[in-house]
Amino acid sequence: MAAAAPPPPPSAAPEPSMAAPETTPIGHPVFTRIRLATPSDVPFIHKLIHQMAVFERLSHLCSATESSLSSNLFLSPPFHSFTIFLLELSSSPIPPLLSPSSSFTPIEKTFNLDIPVNDPEKDTFSIYYGDQQVIIGGFVLFFPNYSTFLGKPGFYVEDLFVRECYRRKGFGKMLLSAVAKQAVKMGYGRVEWVVLDWNVNAITFYEQMGAKVLPEWRICRLTGDALQAYQNANV
Amino acid sequence: MAAAAPPPPPSAAPEPSMAAPETTPIGHPVFTRIRLATPSDVPFIHKLIHQMAVFERLSHLCSATESSLSSNLFLSPPFHSFTIFLLELSSSPIPPLLSPSSSFTPIEKTFNLDIPVNDPEKDTFSIYYGDQQVIIGGFVLFFPNYSTFLGKPGFYVEDLFVRECYRRKGFGKMLLSAVAKQAVKMGYGRVEWVVLDWNVNAITFYEQMGAKVLPEWRICRLTGDALQAYQNANV
Repeated sequence: MAAAAPPPPPSAAPEPSMAAPETTPIGHPVFTRIRLATPSDVPFIHKLIHQMAVFERLSHLCSATESSLSSNLFLSPPFHSFTIFLLELSSSPIPPLLSPSSSFTPIEKTFNLDIPVNDPEKDTFSIYYGDQQVIIGGFVLFFPNYSTFLGKPGFYVEDLFVRECYRRKGFGKMLLSAVAKQAVKMGYGRVEWVVLDWNVNAITFYEQMGAKVLPEWRICRLTGDALQAYQNANV
Repeated sequence: MAAAAPPPPPSAAPEPSMAAPETTPIGHPVFTRIRLATPSDVPFIHKLIHQMAVFERLSHLCSATESSLSSNLFLSPPFHSFTIFLLELSSSPIPPLLSPSSSFTPIEKTFNLDIPVNDPEKDTFSIYYGDQQVIIGGFVLFFPNYSTFLGKPGFYVEDLFVRECYRRKGFGKMLLSAVAKQAVKMGYGRVEWVVLDWNVNAITFYEQMGAKVLPEWRICRLTGDALQAYQNANV
C-alpha cells in the first residue's frame, strides 16, 4: 500500500475559508479522524464487514448480521475486549464529538491528495454532525491477546478494511498505526494479525511498518460440526 | 498424542478403600480434575510457563515473572478475558473445591494407566486439600477472540502444556476438549490456536480432534523497538 502524500505544514493547513482558487492548485485536502465506534455505528460496521467479505471472495462464509454484531460488541469498556476504530473522512474539518470517550482521544490528520476521491457510496456511509457530512471510510477491529512468554497482553487485529475508493492513500496505515500507538500507551508487548502468504503487497506493506512475518506457525481451527461434537463430550 | 486408556466403568471405579491386591492388576488409577486457576496458583503457572519455554527451546524469550502474571491475569471474570484451566492429578479421588466458581463446574475423569507415573517434581507442583496431596500436571491459557464473518466470539488457545512425565496419556486432549466444550456452551463459533508447521505429531493429534490446519495464513508481529517507535507516531 502506498504511503499518503505528507500533510501540509500546519500554517498551510487548508480550511473551508481558505479554499484555494483554481489557479493555485494545492491538492485536495481530506480531513480524517479515527474514533472509537459506538453501538449506533453497527449498520456501518455491518456493511463494511460484508464489503470486506466480497473483496476477499468469501461472502459465502459471512453470516454476521446487525443483530449478531450488536449482541456481541460493545459489552466491555474499550480495549478490554473487542474494540473498533472507525475512519472518518471529510473535505472540511470534522466537528468535535459531542460525547467523547474518556478512554481514547480521537486521532486527526489532514491528507492532501493529488486527485479528488469519487466515492460512489458516499450517501450510504454518511454521518451528519449538525449540517456537516462525514464519510466512514474504513475500520479496524482488534482485541487483547496474551503472551505467556512476555507475561503481558498485546492486541490482535482481526480485521483492517478501507473502502475501495480510499485505498492506497495511507488510511490503512493510519488505522493500524493507531492500534500500535494504543498498545504502546497501555504498556502492551505486541500487536499481531495474520496475512495470506500469497499477498505480497500486504506483506511488503506490513514489513515496512516494522512487522515481522512468522514463517513457521500455522493456524488450527475447530469450528462447525467438529466443534459442536464437544457439546456432550466426556473430556 | 496417544489417547488415554478408557476409564473403568463407574461400578469398577477404584477408590481408596478398594485398593486392588497385587494379585489382581487393574492398572494404576489417576484421578484428574480440570478447574479454573486462581491468583494463588500464579507460582505454579509461572513454573509451568518456564518449563514450556525450555521445552520449546525459547527460554531466552521468556520474561514472564510471578509479578507480571499477577498484575495481568485474573482482572476479569472467567472467560471474559485471559482464562486458565489447571489440570490436577491424584492417586485417590480429589476433594471438592471449598470455593467453587459459579462460572465453571470442574471436569473430573479417572484414567487407568498401565504404568505408574514417576513424577520427579511432585513436591514442587503439589497442592494440599486438607491432608490430600494433589499434583498440578498442566494448564491451558485461552481468551476470547472475534470473527467478524461469524459475527460472534470464539476462543483462542495461547498455550497448552502438560508436564513431561504426564504426556501421551490423554491429558492434553482433556484440556483442549474442555476449552472446546466451554466454547459450545457459550455459543461461540470457533476455537483456534497455532502450531509449528514441522510438528507433524501435533498436527496429526489436532486433526484427529477435528481441527483443520489453515495452510495459507501467516502471523504478522509488531513488537519490541519496532512497536515502541509508534509511541509518538503521527499516525
